[in-house]
Amino acid sequence: MGGSSNRVNIFKDIPDLENSLPISGQTMEPLQIHKVSCPKGKKTLQTLKQELGEVFFPDDPLHQFKNQSFLRKLALALQYLFPIFQWGSEYNLQLLKSDAISGLTIASLAIPQGISYAKLANLPPIIGLYSSFVPPLIYSVLGSSRDLAVGPVSIASLVMGSMLREAVSPDKEPTMYLQLAFTATFFAGVFQASLGFLRLGFIVDFLSKPTLIGFMGGAAIIVSLQQLKGLLGIVHFTTKMGFVPVMLSVFKQRTEWAWQTVILGFCFLCFLLITRHIGLRRPKLFWVSAAAPLTSVILSTIIVFGLKGHSHGIQTIGKLQEGLNPPSANMLYFRGSYLGLAIKTGIITGILSLTEGIAVGRTFASLKNYQVDGNKEMMAIGLMNMAGSCTSCYVTTGSFSRSAVNYNAGSKTAVSNMVMASVVLITMLFLMPLFFYTPNVILSVIIITAVIGLIDFSSAMRLWKVDKLDFVACLSAFFGVLFISVQIGLAIAVGISMLKILMHVTRPSVVILGKVPGTMSYRSLGQYREAARIPSLIILGIESPIYFANSMYLQERILRWVREEEERAAKMMESNIKCIVLDISAVTAIDASGIDALLELKKALNNRSIQLVIANPVAGVAEKLNLSEAWEKLGSECIYMRVCEAVVAVSSMLKGQQGQP
Amino acid sequence: MGGSSNRVNIFKDIPDLENSLPISGQTMEPLQIHKVSCPKGKKTLQTLKQELGEVFFPDDPLHQFKNQSFLRKLALALQYLFPIFQWGSEYNLQLLKSDAISGLTIASLAIPQGISYAKLANLPPIIGLYSSFVPPLIYSVLGSSRDLAVGPVSIASLVMGSMLREAVSPDKEPTMYLQLAFTATFFAGVFQASLGFLRLGFIVDFLSKPTLIGFMGGAAIIVSLQQLKGLLGIVHFTTKMGFVPVMLSVFKQRTEWAWQTVILGFCFLCFLLITRHIGLRRPKLFWVSAAAPLTSVILSTIIVFGLKGHSHGIQTIGKLQEGLNPPSANMLYFRGSYLGLAIKTGIITGILSLTEGIAVGRTFASLKNYQVDGNKEMMAIGLMNMAGSCTSCYVTTGSFSRSAVNYNAGSKTAVSNMVMASVVLITMLFLMPLFFYTPNVILSVIIITAVIGLIDFSSAMRLWKVDKLDFVACLSAFFGVLFISVQIGLAIAVGISMLKILMHVTRPSVVILGKVPGTMSYRSLGQYREAARIPSLIILGIESPIYFANSMYLQERILRWVREEEERAAKMMESNIKCIVLDISAVTAIDASGIDALLELKKALNNRSIQLVIANPVAGVAEKLNLSEAWEKLGSECIYMRVCEAVVAVSSMLKGQQGQP
Repeated sequence: MGGSSNRVNIFKDIPDLENSLPISGQTMEPLQIHKVSCPKGKKTLQTLKQELGEVFFPDDPLHQFKNQSFLRKLALALQYLFPIFQWGSEYNLQLLKSDAISGLTIASLAIPQGISYAKLANLPPIIGLYSSFVPPLIYSVLGSSRDLAVGPVSIASLVMGSMLREAVSPDKEPTMYLQLAFTATFFAGVFQASLGFLRLGFIVDFLSKPTLIGFMGGAAIIVSLQQLKGLLGIVHFTTKMGFVPVMLSVFKQRTEWAWQTVILGFCFLCFLLITRHIGLRRPKLFWVSAAAPLTSVILSTIIVFGLKGHSHGIQTIGKLQEGLNPPSANMLYFRGSYLGLAIKTGIITGILSLTEGIAVGRTFASLKNYQVDGNKEMMAIGLMNMAGSCTSCYVTTGSFSRSAVNYNAGSKTAVSNMVMASVVLITMLFLMPLFFYTPNVILSVIIITAVIGLIDFSSAMRLWKVDKLDFVACLSAFFGVLFISVQIGLAIAVGISMLKILMHVTRPSVVILGKVPGTMSYRSLGQYREAARIPSLIILGIESPIYFANSMYLQERILRWVREEEERAAKMMESNIKCIVLDISAVTAIDASGIDALLELKKALNNRSIQLVIANPVAGVAEKLNLSEAWEKLGSECIYMRVCEAVVAVSSMLKGQQGQP
Repeated sequence: MGGSSNRVNIFKDIPDLENSLPISGQTMEPLQIHKVSCPKGKKTLQTLKQELGEVFFPDDPLHQFKNQSFLRKLALALQYLFPIFQWGSEYNLQLLKSDAISGLTIASLAIPQGISYAKLANLPPIIGLYSSFVPPLIYSVLGSSRDLAVGPVSIASLVMGSMLREAVSPDKEPTMYLQLAFTATFFAGVFQASLGFLRLGFIVDFLSKPTLIGFMGGAAIIVSLQQLKGLLGIVHFTTKMGFVPVMLSVFKQRTEWAWQTVILGFCFLCFLLITRHIGLRRPKLFWVSAAAPLTSVILSTIIVFGLKGHSHGIQTIGKLQEGLNPPSANMLYFRGSYLGLAIKTGIITGILSLTEGIAVGRTFASLKNYQVDGNKEMMAIGLMNMAGSCTSCYVTTGSFSRSAVNYNAGSKTAVSNMVMASVVLITMLFLMPLFFYTPNVILSVIIITAVIGLIDFSSAMRLWKVDKLDFVACLSAFFGVLFISVQIGLAIAVGISMLKILMHVTRPSVVILGKVPGTMSYRSLGQYREAARIPSLIILGIESPIYFANSMYLQERILRWVREEEERAAKMMESNIKCIVLDISAVTAIDASGIDALLELKKALNNRSIQLVIANPVAGVAEKLNLSEAWEKLGSECIYMRVCEAVVAVSSMLKGQQGQP
């Protein structure tokens, strides 16, 4: 590593390279040119193994098993599969106290929300309670998040309800509808668990943030509008989900509006919105908003009971069956005409609930600084839904609102889910008659308050500020959900997200580089004012992989740069363009079309007596160029490790040509 | 730009930076740190205009109109719209001679091919001749390629035939089938012209090369197998396109095989294959392969006429209507149940024929070193098909085989297309009775010989060598076409091509960088053996944009690098990791999720007392970071222009910390 004995200040007085270029007539000693190493092709199997490893095991899950004894490995495997063994051994009374408090708190939220969300999915209210009992128990054994509060959620309930209702009416064929709901839940679970098992968790990442913001906002408004049925006491309401039919239905049925219901509803809506506001403003007062829904249920039930409101046109829940979750495995539906619908509904609700569950899990994990393993979470949520579908539960996942309350109430482990499940169990066994006089309007009010938090206006504004195209994706999802349908809205949004990635590849930026004075680095002229052009050369930085989708564009765009630079040089009375240096540091991949484009470009430039030189191919690109024999065709003497080496080499060569007669 | 008077050899003896790092205890004068310029947000409209310009006008088509007088502008516009004015004024007898020879040559190919391809599309043979008359005339006025020979082509004929036959039988409802074919042609033209007019030409680029190789190969085999009907003289043949039904049909109908037809067919197949081979081996003898089809037609007609073969079971073309193209605008079909099918067929055949036409045009343009404007070509081909659909023509485009013959025969301008059209006109007016005894088997033989050239085995092998995933895409397209259907095969192939782009973004490479001795550059340790790590630091290069699709992955992958490097450092008894430098030169774009991921990463690292430093954000990324206020959150003092500046700054800071008690 010679030179360490010869320490001088290398930074203070580096002469400007352009002034010392041979072309300006002065002599200069040669720059040390580095050979660009051109990796030899690895064996097919080896490459494949490495690539698949990166795709499916980026987190290297077997890492902790390395260099361990057999028994230790067994224990680790058990802990890996059942995280309860990880924290269970160190569990103590102190932790239990915290978990009991948070468990009770989320139970007070889970019971009214469970009943409400079941109604959103057009299911009997009791299914919502069933779904708040079995899945939390299973999750507390399998799940790796300490803060996730598991149960039904609004978006998945809404989507399931809207998709199934298109084919089967929940009023006319209630048994069939229930069968379909359980079957869809089963397939959602199978889909989720297999995504986790096959380590395809990255599919969830394709729902981009702008998409989700728009989708959630649209869904929240649709859900809220649907609640106008309960809030206004309308009996004959449209079964459609869109903005237009719902609003039409609301105003057509004006005669059915019941003023008693409206007054009761708006009073409690104000109450819940105010408590929600308090909870948001002062996290320490989280219990105000957490306890409000149960309080509203109790208060409104007492009011209706006291005023005999049910005889004044206020609709109530009515009789609920007492008892434990009945088994429902025999209700799963594996044949016949609706099987396709059940699978489709399962996959869509499955992916939506996974997205919510994992995002929530990660959010709170990062607040407490621990890691949540996405693929493991998927398996846990999937198994929980599969088990749920056999015990009269519908799709469940980690809910944002309840998890936030759980976190604020000081939960320490998944035991808080067990506490919540126990409270739900007691309710189901003994307290069901108490809900007889609970008015439906209160469920609508609870749903509205819960989903209003999904409208994230400030994030949407931030998108507008940062990236207009993301904002368009967000708006499309929003209006797609609002005016067309939930599924189409989702499809549009995912499509736009993908298109954005593809567009970036299809129309990559090509920037012109110049030398930053005092360095040997070349940077974009547009970005760095101080960067200066090198006469007779064009140095272009290509900012994208070169693929079939952009190879034609890049070829034409580079030729246009040449034309423009030639015109500029002619105008400024500078010397002609002799060479183009392509800085391909940011070209992180290349395919057969891309390689052909480079060779075509070289031919087109050589026809104009312009030389093509390439600087800094990354390993993957160098390998491809070598394998396709483009390395020799481009000329290995035309491939440099750094732009500055290329510039010096080309300049001295040009000078040599000038020197000849 | 100081220092030019102080010229020393800066390259020979640069001390290794790591040895001169402050951390090793020696003093050093400070490196000049460059401020990373953080571009101010441009106005929305300005950005939009620039971005749209790049998307739709990458070739800056109005460039030539700048600084011209009004009359000159008018002339240029006329020349732009009708390229015939560009070359027409300089046309002379010398050029005409060349064009006449090449025009006659391609006519001798176009007549038998026209008849054959029309049969491939289940259309009456005469439609193939009509389609070789009007479209070439229109193209010669509008087209910008000098070598393209226009007419029906095999792939588009095959796809149109197979798509329309699924809904309407060409035997039972010939008029309806004809109407649909003209309507599909009309929509193909409208689609092509609007792609060109809306400057969406890049959509064609989404058919990647591997996809096309596989698709063409599969289609060629399907077409050849279909010709077994004619080659074996089978009368009752399957109407399906797949490999399995066709082979089943061939062997089930063994009783129908006609030995006279088989002998005649195989003799001429050998003749055509041999002449094709000669043409390929010796480009100067191109006329041997060019004249062979017409020779075969004439010879076989004479043989059949002489031996009275039609009474020995050899099927012949029979009577063809003499006369010019009849108008068919009244046959276009704009309503009813098949309209959707016609539009779909139009779009698919339109995009396929565009791909072929533009690829062929560009290939020969680059051989003669002129430019073909993709969007203009699309408009020309589209208008030609729209006009064709009103004059009894079906989908036409530039054919590869005929254009190659045209080029080799010395064509100079589009006049060769006019000469060809005139010969076809004479044929249609006077020579139709001559085809009465032409055997169908000869048409099958001509088709087989033409499509066999589409099987590009060597390119497929090159794909296997260069990129396994591309090879898989190619194979999928091939088998999809062969065993499922032409459309599904195409859809699979396009899907895989897109998926490949998305996969590259979803699982980008992250490489660990080291300092290349004797330079201030940092390069991948895996690529450059001589690159060396810097103690206490991890320098990571991220080789992809940071998007929602990979932000989670990158976050986890970087944390895994940290863990692995910490383990390595512990094993090697090196000092702890204190800082991570992210070289984001190759991060050419970032979105909201990506920015959040960076901020999350900073938090996660800070929790482990590791610092996060960023080097070389490109203009687009710097702008986004600034707009989203992440610039301040990351700390503007943690963003450097070069990795070496970041390393020196961090090292001196770490030393400062060490110095403190």
